[in-house]
Amino acid sequence: MSLEQILKAESVAIVGASKNETKRGYQTIRTLLDEKYEGRIYPVNPKEKSILGFKCYKKVADIEGPVDVALVATPAASLPAVLEDCGQNGVKGAVILAGGFGETGRDGRKLEGEMVAVARKHKIRLIGPNTSGMLNLHDRLNLVGLKNTPKGDIALLTQSGNMALTLITEAKIKSRKGFSYYVGVGNEADIQFHEYLEFFRQDPNTNAVLMYVEGLRNGREFIQQAAKTALEKPIILLKSGRSSTGKRSAGSHTGALAGISEVATGAFKRAGIIVVDCSDMLFPAAETLASLPPIKNNKVAILADGGGHATIAADLLTDSGVEIPELSAKTQANLKKILPAAASVPNPVDVAGGTDADPSVFADCAKIILNDPNVGGLLIVGLFGGYGIRFAESLSLMEEDAAHRMGKMVKKRNKPIVLHSLYNSEKPHALELLRYYNIPVYDSLDIAVNCISVLAEYGNFLNSYHPKQSFELSWGEKARPAGQKIISAARRDGRNALLEHEAKQLFAIHGAPVSADLMAQTEDEAVEFAQKIGQEVVLKIVSPDILHKSDAGGVRIKLKTEKEIRTAFKEISKNARKYNPNADIRGMLVSPMANLGVEIIIGTKYDDQFGPVIMYGLGGIMVEIMKDVSFRVLPITRTTARKMIEQTKSFPILNGARGNPPLDQKAIIKLLMLCSEIVEAYPEIEEMDLNPVIVHEKGISIVDARVILKSEGGMERIRKSECGRRNERIRKSECGRRNLKIRKHLIQKKKQIKGDCYEKTYFNR
Amino acid sequence: MSLEQILKAESVAIVGASKNETKRGYQTIRTLLDEKYEGRIYPVNPKEKSILGFKCYKKVADIEGPVDVALVATPAASLPAVLEDCGQNGVKGAVILAGGFGETGRDGRKLEGEMVAVARKHKIRLIGPNTSGMLNLHDRLNLVGLKNTPKGDIALLTQSGNMALTLITEAKIKSRKGFSYYVGVGNEADIQFHEYLEFFRQDPNTNAVLMYVEGLRNGREFIQQAAKTALEKPIILLKSGRSSTGKRSAGSHTGALAGISEVATGAFKRAGIIVVDCSDMLFPAAETLASLPPIKNNKVAILADGGGHATIAADLLTDSGVEIPELSAKTQANLKKILPAAASVPNPVDVAGGTDADPSVFADCAKIILNDPNVGGLLIVGLFGGYGIRFAESLSLMEEDAAHRMGKMVKKRNKPIVLHSLYNSEKPHALELLRYYNIPVYDSLDIAVNCISVLAEYGNFLNSYHPKQSFELSWGEKARPAGQKIISAARRDGRNALLEHEAKQLFAIHGAPVSADLMAQTEDEAVEFAQKIGQEVVLKIVSPDILHKSDAGGVRIKLKTEKEIRTAFKEISKNARKYNPNADIRGMLVSPMANLGVEIIIGTKYDDQFGPVIMYGLGGIMVEIMKDVSFRVLPITRTTARKMIEQTKSFPILNGARGNPPLDQKAIIKLLMLCSEIVEAYPEIEEMDLNPVIVHEKGISIVDARVILKSEGGMERIRKSECGRRNERIRKSECGRRNLKIRKHLIQKKKQIKGDCYEKTYFNR
Repeated sequence: MSLEQILKAESVAIVGASKNETKRGYQTIRTLLDEKYEGRIYPVNPKEKSILGFKCYKKVADIEGPVDVALVATPAASLPAVLEDCGQNGVKGAVILAGGFGETGRDGRKLEGEMVAVARKHKIRLIGPNTSGMLNLHDRLNLVGLKNTPKGDIALLTQSGNMALTLITEAKIKSRKGFSYYVGVGNEADIQFHEYLEFFRQDPNTNAVLMYVEGLRNGREFIQQAAKTALEKPIILLKSGRSSTGKRSAGSHTGALAGISEVATGAFKRAGIIVVDCSDMLFPAAETLASLPPIKNNKVAILADGGGHATIAADLLTDSGVEIPELSAKTQANLKKILPAAASVPNPVDVAGGTDADPSVFADCAKIILNDPNVGGLLIVGLFGGYGIRFAESLSLMEEDAAHRMGKMVKKRNKPIVLHSLYNSEKPHALELLRYYNIPVYDSLDIAVNCISVLAEYGNFLNSYHPKQSFELSWGEKARPAGQKIISAARRDGRNALLEHEAKQLFAIHGAPVSADLMAQTEDEAVEFAQKIGQEVVLKIVSPDILHKSDAGGVRIKLKTEKEIRTAFKEISKNARKYNPNADIRGMLVSPMANLGVEIIIGTKYDDQFGPVIMYGLGGIMVEIMKDVSFRVLPITRTTARKMIEQTKSFPILNGARGNPPLDQKAIIKLLMLCSEIVEAYPEIEEMDLNPVIVHEKGISIVDARVILKSEGGMERIRKSECGRRNERIRKSECGRRNLKIRKHLIQKKKQIKGDCYEKTYFNR
Repeated sequence: MSLEQILKAESVAIVGASKNETKRGYQTIRTLLDEKYEGRIYPVNPKEKSILGFKCYKKVADIEGPVDVALVATPAASLPAVLEDCGQNGVKGAVILAGGFGETGRDGRKLEGEMVAVARKHKIRLIGPNTSGMLNLHDRLNLVGLKNTPKGDIALLTQSGNMALTLITEAKIKSRKGFSYYVGVGNEADIQFHEYLEFFRQDPNTNAVLMYVEGLRNGREFIQQAAKTALEKPIILLKSGRSSTGKRSAGSHTGALAGISEVATGAFKRAGIIVVDCSDMLFPAAETLASLPPIKNNKVAILADGGGHATIAADLLTDSGVEIPELSAKTQANLKKILPAAASVPNPVDVAGGTDADPSVFADCAKIILNDPNVGGLLIVGLFGGYGIRFAESLSLMEEDAAHRMGKMVKKRNKPIVLHSLYNSEKPHALELLRYYNIPVYDSLDIAVNCISVLAEYGNFLNSYHPKQSFELSWGEKARPAGQKIISAARRDGRNALLEHEAKQLFAIHGAPVSADLMAQTEDEAVEFAQKIGQEVVLKIVSPDILHKSDAGGVRIKLKTEKEIRTAFKEISKNARKYNPNADIRGMLVSPMANLGVEIIIGTKYDDQFGPVIMYGLGGIMVEIMKDVSFRVLPITRTTARKMIEQTKSFPILNGARGNPPLDQKAIIKLLMLCSEIVEAYPEIEEMDLNPVIVHEKGISIVDARVILKSEGGMERIRKSECGRRNERIRKSECGRRNLKIRKHLIQKKKQIKGDCYEKTYFNR
């Protein structure tokens, strides 16, 4: 069901309505009246006849007309019954204010489950529970305890009522911008972040989405929706709760080397989300992105009336990867014509007193600078707006003239200007004028710099976006039946791990270059197989009870002669018995000794929020000591796979550092893609480890492979989760259909972006 | 000469005094009058008889009484003559406003040199040139164009007039704090940063020093002075100009691997300076550190009236290394007694509505929390101060009650409280009260968090400080004459580089374990020497014209037999002739082949701002590809040397990772200390490279050593510089004396700190 009927509800029942002015059940009705909500209002309270002039109903079921949304202000325990009642009326959505559900522990989780079950039965969608409510400013549907929230085009989606209050207060005090919606997401018991995002993408009143997130129930779906949304509207996000999640560490390399938080941030950024790392930047970034066109070429000019501010700004911009190009000779010459000789014009431009007598020279400079085709945006830092305050009042008028001209300039040139002004807090009229023209002004230099750089970051995302790169999801459908057999056999065998040869076989089925290993039961067989292989071999123990073969003395390498093989066989058998007298030994794997090369390690792991994630790194010291690895949320594309490799610090080693030949990177990319495919194809896989894989000048050798399956309990949990249900749905349908649909949507969007976005989207809203 | 007579001048001459109200020569006199400066004022202008009622003099020399300081408002070109005139009167200091000196290029540098020469002749100390001036608020000596600067205990030292304006504006609008001094340092043509620092350390009106620095003329001396000052008063510093300095890269490893900026930041921090990385933090950090006692144990509690703010604060604190300990069982029990059941009390403490009806409960909670011996400081985040605004006006009085109680609590417990309040910008009285008690309040959550963490950072510095660790400077005095001979011989030979065996000899003189290399002139000699050495040997070409021996095919290793040695000798000779037919070949070095071990690399380099710096890293891939190195400004202590080693990511390799034995870290520390000593002992050394050094289980082998001397021009430049002169002075005196003096000073300070600092310094000022 679309969220439209809920978020734009035309009739509201207040369950737990009250005559007590301190109660939410009273205040909500009062606010709806005060703010002139045009829909129908139905108080529900068995003890009252009427409240604030409205007829009061005993039950929701008693209400004559249809009810779009119920605001439920009653305690947690009442919820299953209240929703049952709502169901009788055909209520479409409910906003559950009460806390005391999943966030409080086991009993709460149980109650939350019961509540959701009732809601599902009646097809009622839920906002919350444990939410401060919901507010639709354009339809004056205020179901939250906040008054005087400024109306505008930013949709606000948070998991903290106080952060919402912070952002709304900031908007009120410091900005002309406001909000289209506020939704307190609460526990995400039913409606999840990505569904709101989908709604805001389609909502004509929303031009940017501002989010404060502590945890996501379905990160995978969120990223997919964000990737689609970011192409049309900027998303600004602060993720907190790192310090606790960071502590989580799992047993495998994949889990232990980095908190999921880094993976999440990377995935958010690749989806085009503007991730800010401090709360001071949340509102300014949203304000700027909702107000101004993005910067197309990552190049910014700085205009300053003093050295210090320009130097700090240049440092910070450089830190965030924005270029500060030297202005063209023509631009510099034109600036020199209107500025004193001491002025510095290459970029940053320092007016050196050239605006003291007439601050409207700022606009003259801005015009010349924005005319430079190499300049994508302009950052003005210093005293503008304060000339009238600091020097002579008459200068104010010149500043106002400059403000008008710069405002029009931004519209005409379609290049953004952001201002820092020391005098912003004194609220001079010139700065108010700039805001009227959608030019944001900050008294913090740091924030102004960050704002111009998020415009560049968003522009870079829109530029770099290529639909082909995304969602080349392959389920390896043809190979699946054969692969499934291996997994099922292991399950029947009562195992949650594939044996090495099974794991390799699974990879071989999907087309990986796996060595022709042979499983020997006896010493003689081992010798025979080694002769068949015809080169140096490795002997490895095969036992479901010995996962760490080397630790158990279960591996012997570089075996050439029959004698060596027989000795090794005996030693391994002896070691294995010593290591675990009860081990179920299935045999001995005889593998050809891999050629020389560089070791890499690839691992995947199932994360509760994001589903499967993948890790890549050079093996040995690089992974164990230098922790030089890269992570991605699966599935990945070829481009992502290449970037994973290139982003490690040790990457030059693959390129042939220190006089060595370059190694086969294409083969690594192929293997990463294959891992992605396998993990998507078999949701049973909890964890994979290819360690080591040896990369040669040509080709790779998978020396060891480990595949861990989810426990039956884990499978059940996933099947029940949103993410699992979606995957199942997709898998049951023709698997390509969804991808095709997304691809089509994205190609269409891409066209629109290339054509219009910079020109249209940001002004003709 | 002490700066006291200048910064606290009792008589001022205004050179370039004027009757024109728009001129600095008028405004300065006006301001001194308006602000009731109690000293004597002497306008100087040959064309006027009197200005603002003061007799006007034709020349400074004509002034009857003594003149402490001259404010010079005349153009750059006039300066040599003006200072000559000042010299006649015996003027002690001059503030030079004019630009157009060193910052403009060669001609300006020449003029600056002339000006400084005249000043030196007459013993006039100079502030500037190219400065906005100087301001002593306690003596009302205002020689800067700023009015209404709030008086207080923060000394402000900047290289940007606009940054000074920014900080003063911020203080005026957002704080009750103010400044003791403002000095625009300008070009540092004479008085340098460290001299001001020394003055502020001794100034009773100053409790913190706030600095904005773009470049230091004498970083080495600055660090020494900062280290002394930070023990008594906090120093807060923002360094900008990274982006340009970052681009500078030199040829050697030391220079190329990192901008000096990183080295500088590290050195600043080790000296106890609070280095902030954004301009928004400059004033708040100074305000907080000047107002509150530092946190003794790096442990902070968070008190919040909402989840979001607490979560963000916990993340940021964790990021900056501050601990958020679980409160004691007793503390938690006491909190539970006064808070609702839903409250979370472990830390962060979330009151869960427990302050809604009575916000003075904040003070009750604060009292319980600060009583916990495990809590070093408290951060309160959320709505405090706004309960009266948001809920009911009567709550304001309860907030004010809480403010009084918390203010007294900080003083009594000697533990700091910092506040974030959403309502700060609405200026409720309760927050004004907190400021009265020196508790800073910020509307930015990020800034509030950073402020509590700089209190922890400063506390950590004071705790960790141990006088023995510092300045164990050894000049290797006994070894010097022998070492100097080697260097002088190379100079006589017309060389700026020592040959390998000379460099090794230099190290041997200072006690490094250098192999018994022998220099062979003939093939026969090489064979003879190899036999003498009695193990596998290496042959290396020795030529001042072949510095990169391997590139020239000038090295052969692992030579065992006579035949191998003879072949190698011939090959090397042939290769060398081919590489450079005119090379002056001095012979062939026969060295014992070093035992196996791990390669490291040590380098030193002379930096213009900081003098010699040192680099350490594991060799090979680790330095070339992973750039895994650490830098320090020399001299270093044993502790610093150990930290240099431990701070590299590859450190575990030395500890015996992957089943290898641990290697001799003590020997590396000894070698780093030795490099420090050698570089201090021979100011002629521009650059050294020990690459590779092989570290064994016991001992190390210096396989190759390179020492580059400064060019004669470079030596001249250094001799003339402040830093060089100081070093020369020290070297000529008994070398230990200075160290002894510093050590004594520090031990004394240390005692004072341990005894008083936390108890006294921050309140009884």
